[in-house]
Amino acid sequence: MVRTLLVIGTGLIGTSVALAARRAGVAVFLADRDAATARAAEALGAGRAEPPGRPVDLALVAVPPGQVGTVLGDAQARRTARSYTDVAGVKGEPERDVLRLAPDPASYVGGHPIAGRERSGPLAARADLFDGRTWVLTPHERSGVAAIERATALAEICGATPVRMDSPTHDAVIALTSHVPHLMASLTAARLRPGPSATETLAGQGVRDVTRIAAGDPALWTDIVRSNAAAIAAVLREVRDDLASLVAAADILAQPDPAGHAEAQRVITDLLQRGVAGAARTRPTSATPAG
Amino acid sequence: MVRTLLVIGTGLIGTSVALAARRAGVAVFLADRDAATARAAEALGAGRAEPPGRPVDLALVAVPPGQVGTVLGDAQARRTARSYTDVAGVKGEPERDVLRLAPDPASYVGGHPIAGRERSGPLAARADLFDGRTWVLTPHERSGVAAIERATALAEICGATPVRMDSPTHDAVIALTSHVPHLMASLTAARLRPGPSATETLAGQGVRDVTRIAAGDPALWTDIVRSNAAAIAAVLREVRDDLASLVAAADILAQPDPAGHAEAQRVITDLLQRGVAGAARTRPTSATPAG
Repeated sequence: MVRTLLVIGTGLIGTSVALAARRAGVAVFLADRDAATARAAEALGAGRAEPPGRPVDLALVAVPPGQVGTVLGDAQARRTARSYTDVAGVKGEPERDVLRLAPDPASYVGGHPIAGRERSGPLAARADLFDGRTWVLTPHERSGVAAIERATALAEICGATPVRMDSPTHDAVIALTSHVPHLMASLTAARLRPGPSATETLAGQGVRDVTRIAAGDPALWTDIVRSNAAAIAAVLREVRDDLASLVAAADILAQPDPAGHAEAQRVITDLLQRGVAGAARTRPTSATPAG
Repeated sequence: MVRTLLVIGTGLIGTSVALAARRAGVAVFLADRDAATARAAEALGAGRAEPPGRPVDLALVAVPPGQVGTVLGDAQARRTARSYTDVAGVKGEPERDVLRLAPDPASYVGGHPIAGRERSGPLAARADLFDGRTWVLTPHERSGVAAIERATALAEICGATPVRMDSPTHDAVIALTSHVPHLMASLTAARLRPGPSATETLAGQGVRDVTRIAAGDPALWTDIVRSNAAAIAAVLREVRDDLASLVAAADILAQPDPAGHAEAQRVITDLLQRGVAGAARTRPTSATPAG
C-alpha cells in the first residue's frame, strides 16, 4: 500500500506522478533542491511542499540519472521512507550507484515510466501522463519484496501497467526504442537549423513527427546519453554502417551513368523494407494503420 | 478555371485530389494503367473511370517521379487537356523529362502537394488530405500563364495554399524536410527490426513518431530517393559527420576513465541544441509547444 508519498524532484515527471497520486487520494509531499519549483508543484495541487515529518510509505526520486544514487542515498540516510524508487530513463547506473552509495539498497527498486513530453518543469505536468503506459520496474538482486510491491502499487495508482525486467535488458532495449531515436531526431533536426527560408514552407507533418522529440531538454538528454553510452554507441555503430551504404548508393544514383544504379536501388529498397518491418514493432498490435 | 479534370494515376494522391475536386463540383475523369485501380477510385465517388472524350481543362499526372515525363508526354500527344501538372515529390527530374519528351512543355507546370499518408492506393484516399497544406508549384522558364493559373486553381480547389518556387530550390529543401527525414526514420526503424522481445514493451510515443513515416511504400520511396539522389547525398554526408562525432563521444563516455568526458558531453549537448533549434522550424509559428 502507498498511502503517503514523497516526491523528490518536482520536474515534469515527479510532479505528474504527484498529481496522479493525489488523484488517487495519496498524501503527497514535495521536495526539490529549488524551493520555488516545489512550491510551483504545490500550487498545482500536487501535494504539500514540506517535509513529511515521519517516514512515508514510498519516496520517488525524480532527478536525472547521474544524481539518483546521491539523492536517494541521502534520503535513505535520513530514513525518509520505507521504500524508494526512481524514474530515470536509464537503470544500470542508478542501480550501481545505489548499491555503492545508499545505506539500504534492499529498500530500493528502479523504475522507469515510459511517458514524457517535450516540455519540462512542473507546469508541464499532467495527472494523466502515465494512463495506459508501461512502467518498467527493474528489481536488483537485493531488492526486497516490500519495495517491489510499493513501486508496483505506485505504477498502478498512476494508471500505468507495471512490467519487470533486469536493468541490463532495460538499458539495451531503451537505447533502441528511446535514446537512439532521440539522437536520430536530433541529427535530422540539426540539418534543418541552417536550411534556407523555404524550410518552414516545405516542412510537413512527416518531418514534424520525426523531429518532435528533438525538442527535449539538451542538458537532461546529455545526461541520459552519458549514462547509457555503451548501449547507445553499439546501436549507433549499426546505424553508421547502414548510413554509409545509403550515402554510397545515393552517390551512385546521382551519376548519369546507369552502371550500378540497379544495385544501388536494391540497397535503398532493402533499407526501406527493414524500416517498414521495424516501424511496425512500435505500433500497438490492435492499432489500425497510421493515418 | 478548372471545370473538368483528368487524374492519371489513381493511387493515394491522385484519388485524394479527385475526391477533393468532386467535392468542389469539378467533373473528374479517372485513368490508371491498372483498370481495377481506376474502378476502385470510381467506386469511392472520385469520378468516372473513362476517357473524357474531349480535352479537359487540366490533367493531373499522379505517378512516381521517374514516370512523369513519359506519361505526361503521352497525354499531351493525345491532346488530352489544355494544361498539365503533376504531384511528384521531386520536381527537377520531371521538369527535365517533360522539356525533353513532351510535345508542349508550355502547358505544363510542376506541382507537389505537401501531404501524404503511410498507406497507399485509392482506398486510403481522403478528400480533406490537402486542407490547409502547402501545395508547391514549380513553373519552369517556358511554363505558360494558363498552365500556372489552372494548377493554382486546382491547389485552391483542394483546400491547399499554393506556393511558387523553382525546381532546384524545391528539391534542395525537400531533401532536408522530407527525403532525409524519411531515410532517418527508416535507419532508426531498421534497428528495431531485430530487437529483443521487450522492444514492443518499451516502444513509446516518441519512437512511434520518429519511425511513423518509415512505414511508407519502399518501391515509391526508392524512386523518390533515386530521383533526388544528389541533394539527398549532400545532406546525408553532413548527417554522417555529426553521427561520427556522436559515436566518438559516446565511446569516450562509455569508458570509466573520466578523461575527455566533459568535451564528449559538450559535443552531445551541441548536437542536441542544434536539434532543438531545427525542430522549432518544423512547427507552425502559431502553435503551442508540442504535447
